[in-house]
Amino acid sequence: MKTELETICRKINDRLCALVPSDNALTGEVSQAAVYSLSGGGKRLRPVLMMKFYELCGGKESGNLLDIFCTIELVHTFSLIHDDLPCMDNDDYRRGRLSCHKAYPEAIALLAGDALSVLPFEIISQSAKNGVISYETAAKLTYALSHAIGIEGMIGGQVIDMLSENTQIPEETLYELQKKKTGALISAACEMGCILANADDKTISLAKEYADKLGLAFQIRDDILDVTGTFEELGKPIGSDKEQNKSTFVTLLGVEKAEKLCRELSEQAAKILSQFENSEFLTSLTEMLIDRRN
Amino acid sequence: MKTELETICRKINDRLCALVPSDNALTGEVSQAAVYSLSGGGKRLRPVLMMKFYELCGGKESGNLLDIFCTIELVHTFSLIHDDLPCMDNDDYRRGRLSCHKAYPEAIALLAGDALSVLPFEIISQSAKNGVISYETAAKLTYALSHAIGIEGMIGGQVIDMLSENTQIPEETLYELQKKKTGALISAACEMGCILANADDKTISLAKEYADKLGLAFQIRDDILDVTGTFEELGKPIGSDKEQNKSTFVTLLGVEKAEKLCRELSEQAAKILSQFENSEFLTSLTEMLIDRRN
Repeated sequence: MKTELETICRKINDRLCALVPSDNALTGEVSQAAVYSLSGGGKRLRPVLMMKFYELCGGKESGNLLDIFCTIELVHTFSLIHDDLPCMDNDDYRRGRLSCHKAYPEAIALLAGDALSVLPFEIISQSAKNGVISYETAAKLTYALSHAIGIEGMIGGQVIDMLSENTQIPEETLYELQKKKTGALISAACEMGCILANADDKTISLAKEYADKLGLAFQIRDDILDVTGTFEELGKPIGSDKEQNKSTFVTLLGVEKAEKLCRELSEQAAKILSQFENSEFLTSLTEMLIDRRN
Repeated sequence: MKTELETICRKINDRLCALVPSDNALTGEVSQAAVYSLSGGGKRLRPVLMMKFYELCGGKESGNLLDIFCTIELVHTFSLIHDDLPCMDNDDYRRGRLSCHKAYPEAIALLAGDALSVLPFEIISQSAKNGVISYETAAKLTYALSHAIGIEGMIGGQVIDMLSENTQIPEETLYELQKKKTGALISAACEMGCILANADDKTISLAKEYADKLGLAFQIRDDILDVTGTFEELGKPIGSDKEQNKSTFVTLLGVEKAEKLCRELSEQAAKILSQFENSEFLTSLTEMLIDRRN
């Protein structure tokens, strides 16, 4: 699984930066800032999920869909750039490097994020105009992605996250925060893979149910690592949640209970995947993500 | 013309704020911030242009397309919110009221802008899923709009604008700045109206040519008013371009030559419109926009 994952990630990394328009010298700096953040590594979890659900639903020859798989990583990177800004989390580091607004002027980082938030829709609609996907598929992808980003999705989650600073939020609010802030995009990744393969509604529901389990487990692992990890492992300062007085699954449940919940979700996710044929890759990936050290 | 314009603007204003998802108490503040900026008035030039080009190209009964017309105003408002932020133009006022990040926390303003940048794509794709427009039309609208926003359009223009601060930029750079920063969205508005009416490529070219003339004249008028207007007329401080040492058509050409160019462009725009039937409304609107005092 790991070798295949590395091969996929290499393909994604090779393509990702080429998607940013960069042939105009006057606007070169914003393109560079976007490419800087896109090339900062990361697990490429979301495009991998989209590709693998496409295959799981019977999709073939995914080579010409690589740009579409990448769209979700463009959105994820946009969210990281804006999340790190001084008025948001004010994080100077991301993945062991300076965050975008530290490597570039703050305004350029803001605009690079803006550009990455809209570029996916240009890529999806262009793919439809070029006949790579149908117009109907394009509309469904556009809806799934834009809804996942908006106030009812990721952006709404960021708002709740901010309001959760310096206060103890109720458990149900923390679940809603996670479901929106990180869950929505992970769910959209799985859904978009199904849409690309023309999967039926029942299959899409199953994929989203899996995504909910994975997304929650992934976030709980993140919260645990913020307490138990090291700067070297994570590439960012440890204890930032505590420093910002954020409510997390660890502050709410403690490390032990959080670990237990993580494992339960992992098992539930695996059970859902077992309903699909050829789901070995995703089952291994799920385990790896939930057991990760960074 | 003015009465009809007022009627159209009222319809747009009534609908605009209702497009923002706002039924979740936890994310209510970002919805309020978006609605605050959307309800700040403005000429609603872009949706009016879209509607009128739709009609000019033979489109009928535009009532069910109101949400689509509004999408371009959502984008325009997103750009104003981000443009006013401290790391960008750092403007405390917009249309005679506090700018979004002065009325709300800066992070909320940032996220409200982000939400408004993506909402149009949700509305367009939703309209296709509901059968209000065809999937093909949705893809074409999505492409026109996202391309106009991106690095090759408005965002690229904002980058050039920032680089033009505290320096005298060459004339051709100023033209490129305008064409991208304000021209791209005005052009997209006209193009989207044509797309909605299934106009042919020749008609779309003509509409974009008109938009280029109007957009440039509109910007030159803006630059002139920044020198000759008053706070009461404009609802924002006068002389902000000079204060920020920005290159404008006035600093480059002087008021007199800028006025002359404005009139020439106005005549050229009117000439293009005369090639369409029933273009009286747009001809009057063009004159009004270029002769405006605010």
